[in-house]
Amino acid sequence: MAQKELNTENTLFRDIVAHAKEYGFVYPSSEIYEGLQAVYDYGPYGAELKKNIKELWWNTMTRFNDDIVGLDSAIFMHPDTWKASGHIESFNDPMIDNKDSKKRYRADVLLEEKAAEYENAGEQEQANSLLKKTGQLLEAEDLEAVRELILAENIKCPISGTANWTEVRQFNLMFSTQIGSVSDGSGKIYLRPETAQGIFVNFLNVQKTARMKIPFGIAQIGKAFRNEIVARQFIFRMREFEQMEMQFFVRPGEEMGWYEKWRDMRLKWHKAIGIAGEDLRLHKHEKLAHYANAAVDVEYKFPFGFKEVEGIHSRTDFDLKSHQEVSKKKLQYFDPEVGKNYIPYVVETSVGADRLFLMLFCSAFKNEETGEGDKVKTRTYLKLHPALAPVKAAILPLTKKDGLPEKGQEIYKSLKGAFNVVYEEAASIGKRYTRQDLIGTPFCIAVDHQTLEDDTVTIRHRDSTEQERMPIADLESYIAKATSFNRVYELLQ
Amino acid sequence: MAQKELNTENTLFRDIVAHAKEYGFVYPSSEIYEGLQAVYDYGPYGAELKKNIKELWWNTMTRFNDDIVGLDSAIFMHPDTWKASGHIESFNDPMIDNKDSKKRYRADVLLEEKAAEYENAGEQEQANSLLKKTGQLLEAEDLEAVRELILAENIKCPISGTANWTEVRQFNLMFSTQIGSVSDGSGKIYLRPETAQGIFVNFLNVQKTARMKIPFGIAQIGKAFRNEIVARQFIFRMREFEQMEMQFFVRPGEEMGWYEKWRDMRLKWHKAIGIAGEDLRLHKHEKLAHYANAAVDVEYKFPFGFKEVEGIHSRTDFDLKSHQEVSKKKLQYFDPEVGKNYIPYVVETSVGADRLFLMLFCSAFKNEETGEGDKVKTRTYLKLHPALAPVKAAILPLTKKDGLPEKGQEIYKSLKGAFNVVYEEAASIGKRYTRQDLIGTPFCIAVDHQTLEDDTVTIRHRDSTEQERMPIADLESYIAKATSFNRVYELLQ
Repeated sequence: MAQKELNTENTLFRDIVAHAKEYGFVYPSSEIYEGLQAVYDYGPYGAELKKNIKELWWNTMTRFNDDIVGLDSAIFMHPDTWKASGHIESFNDPMIDNKDSKKRYRADVLLEEKAAEYENAGEQEQANSLLKKTGQLLEAEDLEAVRELILAENIKCPISGTANWTEVRQFNLMFSTQIGSVSDGSGKIYLRPETAQGIFVNFLNVQKTARMKIPFGIAQIGKAFRNEIVARQFIFRMREFEQMEMQFFVRPGEEMGWYEKWRDMRLKWHKAIGIAGEDLRLHKHEKLAHYANAAVDVEYKFPFGFKEVEGIHSRTDFDLKSHQEVSKKKLQYFDPEVGKNYIPYVVETSVGADRLFLMLFCSAFKNEETGEGDKVKTRTYLKLHPALAPVKAAILPLTKKDGLPEKGQEIYKSLKGAFNVVYEEAASIGKRYTRQDLIGTPFCIAVDHQTLEDDTVTIRHRDSTEQERMPIADLESYIAKATSFNRVYELLQ
Repeated sequence: MAQKELNTENTLFRDIVAHAKEYGFVYPSSEIYEGLQAVYDYGPYGAELKKNIKELWWNTMTRFNDDIVGLDSAIFMHPDTWKASGHIESFNDPMIDNKDSKKRYRADVLLEEKAAEYENAGEQEQANSLLKKTGQLLEAEDLEAVRELILAENIKCPISGTANWTEVRQFNLMFSTQIGSVSDGSGKIYLRPETAQGIFVNFLNVQKTARMKIPFGIAQIGKAFRNEIVARQFIFRMREFEQMEMQFFVRPGEEMGWYEKWRDMRLKWHKAIGIAGEDLRLHKHEKLAHYANAAVDVEYKFPFGFKEVEGIHSRTDFDLKSHQEVSKKKLQYFDPEVGKNYIPYVVETSVGADRLFLMLFCSAFKNEETGEGDKVKTRTYLKLHPALAPVKAAILPLTKKDGLPEKGQEIYKSLKGAFNVVYEEAASIGKRYTRQDLIGTPFCIAVDHQTLEDDTVTIRHRDSTEQERMPIADLESYIAKATSFNRVYELLQ
């Protein structure tokens, strides 16, 4: 039964990926060159949707909240940053190569897949025991024993079919490159694996120049890069991806209250953008990273299971303290209310813009049967929140004659300064409605002969397909209200 | 005199750079680690200003123009992209190292600086002759002769003071890194040195999925990376920077008309965002790149001279043709109006978001003397276009008592859903006005005792410092109109 469900879900996921490609949301990167693994490009509608997601997050952080300001730090940072953060020493995955196929694998993933095989064969006990053992060996960093376990389990490379494995080595997930002003080879830098460190190293710059008082937050959106050995599930886990992170600086000892506030606030936000409550859950970390004293993930029920979309972490003073040690620069705040200097504690919210995109896309993708008997049809549409939909409205003259196109153009021009709207006159009105459904446009505005008489149009609602008559003069304020970010903010109060 | 002017201008530029740092616009990257050369971070107000610049460009392209759609392709691309584009073979600068200081220089820059020395000493003829010779040797790629010329001119390293030079070598400006799924070393990829190629490789994907008809354009904003040997002038030439590029696809033979249209349109745009006409000029390229049949730069008069901000290039079918050859995929368009297949020609507009930021910042930076005699004061403010200013309005209660803060908060809350506004109650009203002038806030709204009686406020205009009384009820529509992108679009008609 589990296997059957998995297949159905995979079909759904394949449909979603195909829809994203066909309707201009997401393309494989460099597709004419057969693609670049685990990298994707956003097409015209995808670029608009992603831009709206980022804008809503940014505005929620920096405007809805009074005590948060933005930052836009560079991808390139001084390499000592990653010494202080711990990434150079420990941002690793255990890697193993098959000598025949030359393919590289994550040793832990090979063992987890073997455990899943046991599970599917009904051998639950063996699965559990293998997972437990794998965990222990990785914890102890006993890489030789991990390799022995792979051999003992007779795990073979799916490409070559052999068990001709190399040693297991730690593989650092940071991409490195050489920066050019020196010729003596000391110019090795990294592409940031997370945006958070750009916030930490600028903590005092921001606090002083924007005159912030603790508690306050710094929000940032930007690209990050991780050289994942195994990257998969479409845009869920990419080698180049975009993060939206907010670091909230608080008094030591007050972090748990803030952690709970941000956990609740972020869960509310995911619901406010239209995700059903039953598709979301909180997953508290039992095993904490070395820098955290509390951590929780917001998980969404993707077609391939519940997976992390956002993490909320109480990071203590780990990062600022490390940077202070490595840089020898004081990263302290003088708190006038308590009259002393301290290194603030940090509560972080960290969400992937691409994962949020995928969550919204999966959640919005609807295949609904309409009609009865022989006339059953499937209607596919994207039920995106109107504030996030790439196109807000389509202006569609019923026919190409009688002055309807001119009237349609007039309406289009009056709206396009305020919203992303499109004008279309080719094909039947039904086909044009369908087209807008497929890209998630919340409103279709049809211009007909009555429009020429009384300056009213029909406005068709994407989700219900119901139509109503509306004066042209009311369109702008109607669409503005329906697509406003305020609709999301109201649900956060 | 020229020298004198240069010094004055350098002082101005230093003031501008210092202002950008002190008021939260631009910080040196990784400053606590003594910075990373030619990389910068945008602080809270800089991040907002840059975001507004990008948003205005994006909307001008994709909304003001009906026939342009957006794209957001990845920084990582298949390496064959750069074979087709010519970057692997010829995106080079001639580099030379001093063996004593180990410092790296651009050979051509060393020679140009020597020519400038001649010029400053009044030896114009020697300067011209050196520049001409340098140009010829580089054209012929005779790197050994370039080295001999450096030795003959007795050019020394400013650090070591010696002429102990290495050979001159071509240095490729692309950053490279290794991508991880293979262990045999074939995973070398590059950080894109321009965003344009992401548009070219996606040309058919976009045309088909967004159902575009030629002529049409694809617009994109994104990071690009160039390992400049000598990077300087603050954010003017950075190793990590952001481009805003639009590729417009046209019928072969019709490109010159479009080239002229885009040249004029883009120049108009720079004026429409508030840059004085006399500070802008067009610089037509006499020597064209191998892919172009016409090219022009929009130059702005920076404190360090007229320099390129944007380029408009007629790129012919060079890029699509090269990608077709290397990828073996047809990149042709069937034009229903003329009934045949062809590779479109391309007219490109390419502007640096960071250079635009620097242009706007330099242009907005005002140091004005007010008052007379002993009472002369200097007023510093940023005269940014209201549509681009980071903060649109500041709400300032005159005093901290009598219910003025509560009233101010009420106004602040009613506006913050629509605009980036701030509320401040600390310090004297004069100091708070000054603070907003320094970050370029166009409107300061003072809440006073009369406000409590008749629900009016004073609104102070940044540029004139004049104040007028206005009903609270009118504030939102007044600010909306003044800060709307429509004000820019109107000037483009």
